[in-house]
Amino acid sequence: MLRAAGVPGADAELVADSLVRADLWGHQSHGVLRLGWYVNRLRSGVMSARTSPETVVDAGAVAVLDGHDGVGQVLAAHAAREAVERAGQHGIGAVAVRNSNHFGTAAYFTRMAPPRGCLGFLATNASPAMAPWGGREKAVGSNPWSMAAPLGSGKQMVMDISNTAVARGKIYLARNRGEPIPPDWAMTAAGEPTTDPAEAIAGVIAPMAAHKGYAISVMMDVLSGVLTGSGFGAAVTGPYQSEHRGGCGHFYLALDIAAFLPLPEFTARMDKLVGELKSNPPAPGTAEIFYPGEIEDRAEALARAEGLRLPAQTLADLRRLAAELDVPYTLEGDECA
Amino acid sequence: MLRAAGVPGADAELVADSLVRADLWGHQSHGVLRLGWYVNRLRSGVMSARTSPETVVDAGAVAVLDGHDGVGQVLAAHAAREAVERAGQHGIGAVAVRNSNHFGTAAYFTRMAPPRGCLGFLATNASPAMAPWGGREKAVGSNPWSMAAPLGSGKQMVMDISNTAVARGKIYLARNRGEPIPPDWAMTAAGEPTTDPAEAIAGVIAPMAAHKGYAISVMMDVLSGVLTGSGFGAAVTGPYQSEHRGGCGHFYLALDIAAFLPLPEFTARMDKLVGELKSNPPAPGTAEIFYPGEIEDRAEALARAEGLRLPAQTLADLRRLAAELDVPYTLEGDECA
Repeated sequence: MLRAAGVPGADAELVADSLVRADLWGHQSHGVLRLGWYVNRLRSGVMSARTSPETVVDAGAVAVLDGHDGVGQVLAAHAAREAVERAGQHGIGAVAVRNSNHFGTAAYFTRMAPPRGCLGFLATNASPAMAPWGGREKAVGSNPWSMAAPLGSGKQMVMDISNTAVARGKIYLARNRGEPIPPDWAMTAAGEPTTDPAEAIAGVIAPMAAHKGYAISVMMDVLSGVLTGSGFGAAVTGPYQSEHRGGCGHFYLALDIAAFLPLPEFTARMDKLVGELKSNPPAPGTAEIFYPGEIEDRAEALARAEGLRLPAQTLADLRRLAAELDVPYTLEGDECA
Repeated sequence: MLRAAGVPGADAELVADSLVRADLWGHQSHGVLRLGWYVNRLRSGVMSARTSPETVVDAGAVAVLDGHDGVGQVLAAHAAREAVERAGQHGIGAVAVRNSNHFGTAAYFTRMAPPRGCLGFLATNASPAMAPWGGREKAVGSNPWSMAAPLGSGKQMVMDISNTAVARGKIYLARNRGEPIPPDWAMTAAGEPTTDPAEAIAGVIAPMAAHKGYAISVMMDVLSGVLTGSGFGAAVTGPYQSEHRGGCGHFYLALDIAAFLPLPEFTARMDKLVGELKSNPPAPGTAEIFYPGEIEDRAEALARAEGLRLPAQTLADLRRLAAELDVPYTLEGDECA
């Protein structure tokens, strides 16, 4: 479908893989649910199907790329490769991306660093979703950020969070599933609590951890929007509409672990840390303690073995989109949903 | 008092200034309240009064320092200077510190970067304070982290947070003030909620934002403990005892803003972001919306104009400590408390 919308083959594969991986990890809010939105943005022209990043700054450990409104996933993957390569030369590499678009799930890109001996960090800004602490109108994005570090035996520890009390995509998913949301996720546009996902989408999401989440989210915009020379604050628009260019910025940092200490020593230390966490006595009601990223790996293994169950609304949307794009729809197991 | 405990003059001034600044910012939990703990650690010998960092790795944009159990503040300031200098040469500089000690308030050190045209980031690990998500025994530190970026006219935007629902120092302060704590700050050692600060100190503090704070805190330990070659997880001990070496690690990152875009353009963009945040319509009960770090600057200006009010217990502790060290106690306005 992405190819039918004009995205070159390798880029289309990357975007598709990133969406399916999010579904496999159990983050359906960031999965194929989003394909229609991306296609709409390609068709309206606010996102360019052909992504050609321009290197604006090329200065040793640092690079700045202008994405010229290309596909967010393609630009984020480019930044990851570029940062890892610069880290290999300088011990650390930072790549700032301006004028990009929503890239899906940040962990997809930070997970590219550990197989190359690096610790990966990625922050992005996003369209306003929260009020500043004490305010009542949308002005601060969820501004997700992620870190990934290698463990022994090819595994990774991965953190990927949005600074809102909940990722906006989870509210869309609740709407698609016809389910209510918890009362502390969001306020209505009038500033009242709500359990109605539609009212929450029109309203304001709360920050995680109150004023702390507000401060973290603003700082992630400083890194990914202000410093990169991209849009920031109210100038960023999300993938949920197809009228305005994204203006999104990303900041990717790669640390070459071997520049700090031998990589096998690092992974042995990571495995020790994981062992400490997992051997903690579980609280009543908890079967097992997980290190960051472990739940996603488990979910992926299970989904690869048993298949993936998508909401009926998501499948219906995909089917309709395929028809619109005149692409044969051959999703196996569709009848399961 | 620090000089009387063997700390060289300039280092003693740095530590004293960092503690008083925390009090001025309104963070009394990280202020002179802590002096006695540091002195106890110097007297027992688990912290060295003379701090002589050894450069273990010196590789362009990256350095690793071994603090050899020296004073945390002195090592963090050293890392800040070193990272800013390397950023000036390479666009970005990362300094990892191993075998250090508690350094007080992280913002004291990130605030050193913006006057030199840099964005500063600092993370540290700390002694276990929280259970891993789903667990019930202390295994994860509060692992504070801070970022500071320049605004126009010499001001800064500053974030400084601990990943616990509350900084442990605030529980000590409540104990010193004889006040109860909110029920969602901590659990007792048996896993029960409590409003008694003494029970909370013996128990387990909750992470901010539930599983998100857990993941962030573990990742800050990966940066500041695992990657630096320092202690991590259970191997880190806090300043509240004087029997064990700290084992603390720090990770300082400086980004030279001019390597990404012209500094005046950056500060103009920051001022625009601040303007957007501050002009948000306030929610009922809010008089003014603050950008991160603004409250601390306001508090400092007020305290410098009107003086600082410290709890009676903190003043009594300082008086006793001065007598023990045979240092004249001449704190002006002590009678105000």
